[in-house]
Amino acid sequence: MGEETSHILSVLVENEAGVLSQVSRLFSRRGFNIESLAVGTTDDVNVSRMTIVVKGTDRMAEQISKQLGKLQPVISVIRLPREDAVSRELMLVKVEAQTSQKRDDIIRIVNVFRANVIDMARNSMTIEVSASSAKSEAMLSLLKEHGIIELVRTGVVAVERGSSSIYDYRREREEFDLGKI
Amino acid sequence: MGEETSHILSVLVENEAGVLSQVSRLFSRRGFNIESLAVGTTDDVNVSRMTIVVKGTDRMAEQISKQLGKLQPVISVIRLPREDAVSRELMLVKVEAQTSQKRDDIIRIVNVFRANVIDMARNSMTIEVSASSAKSEAMLSLLKEHGIIELVRTGVVAVERGSSSIYDYRREREEFDLGKI
Repeated sequence: MGEETSHILSVLVENEAGVLSQVSRLFSRRGFNIESLAVGTTDDVNVSRMTIVVKGTDRMAEQISKQLGKLQPVISVIRLPREDAVSRELMLVKVEAQTSQKRDDIIRIVNVFRANVIDMARNSMTIEVSASSAKSEAMLSLLKEHGIIELVRTGVVAVERGSSSIYDYRREREEFDLGKI
Repeated sequence: MGEETSHILSVLVENEAGVLSQVSRLFSRRGFNIESLAVGTTDDVNVSRMTIVVKGTDRMAEQISKQLGKLQPVISVIRLPREDAVSRELMLVKVEAQTSQKRDDIIRIVNVFRANVIDMARNSMTIEVSASSAKSEAMLSLLKEHGIIELVRTGVVAVERGSSSIYDYRREREEFDLGKI
């Protein structure tokens, strides 16, 4: 069956209503649980890029990539191997900070993790950290001692290391499509 | 009809397969185009938090919030007014950097925007920046002169300024539900 691990899929899609619904339906129909999903615009206003993290075997990841590639608004799909990709996640955390000693402790953690304080109120501080998932978790476990009021994560985004890009794969696909004609 | 602006919706949902599909179907059925969407885990493994940015009139945003609140796996929905929220977006940008002069120029931009270089290859650099959407755009317009190879954005995440949280609204809803019995 193979071991279940996390897979990062990077998907270029036409920016039209209903794309997200099609993509998410595909995952839920197959019973794949999405760990995180981030959808943002690219430098082309007509194209969005989704980064999907999904848990499963290599075989499952391969299948879902192929099925994604068949959806009409999908332009290209690549699987980013963890070791060849740089990945980051953004997290905003609101922590309790009623005393100046607590505030000092929190600022110390913030500095060690190269995070930022982006809001401060009488009883709380809001911290922004962009890091690998492992580093976010480490920071969070320290902040938990102070009491987490709320937190929000973006989900992981990633690009391949080096100079190649998702567009290289699109070009390959176009050549392949031409080859069929 | 009212003016069309961007609205930030923050949604707590049960972490189960099919949630995303339900939420996105609601938007596409109503013809609402999602500008950005970020889904990540919270400190409760059973609960995910979605941040959805959608363009429309105040009335439309109000309607969609109410309809989201009626979906079975949705725990709570709040609309975050831009002026009372801190919002950030994470962007990874791979830029062309073939010469040392180009590299110096890029590093200068990176320092001004308090961004980070997270990968470097013979012909390219990959930059990470967490900022408001306006600041990301400003940085991107400078990097464009060097040639963008690819970019990926997480979509916006946001929390309310001050010490209150999305959980306060959930409590209100629970009290309201109890009131009905």
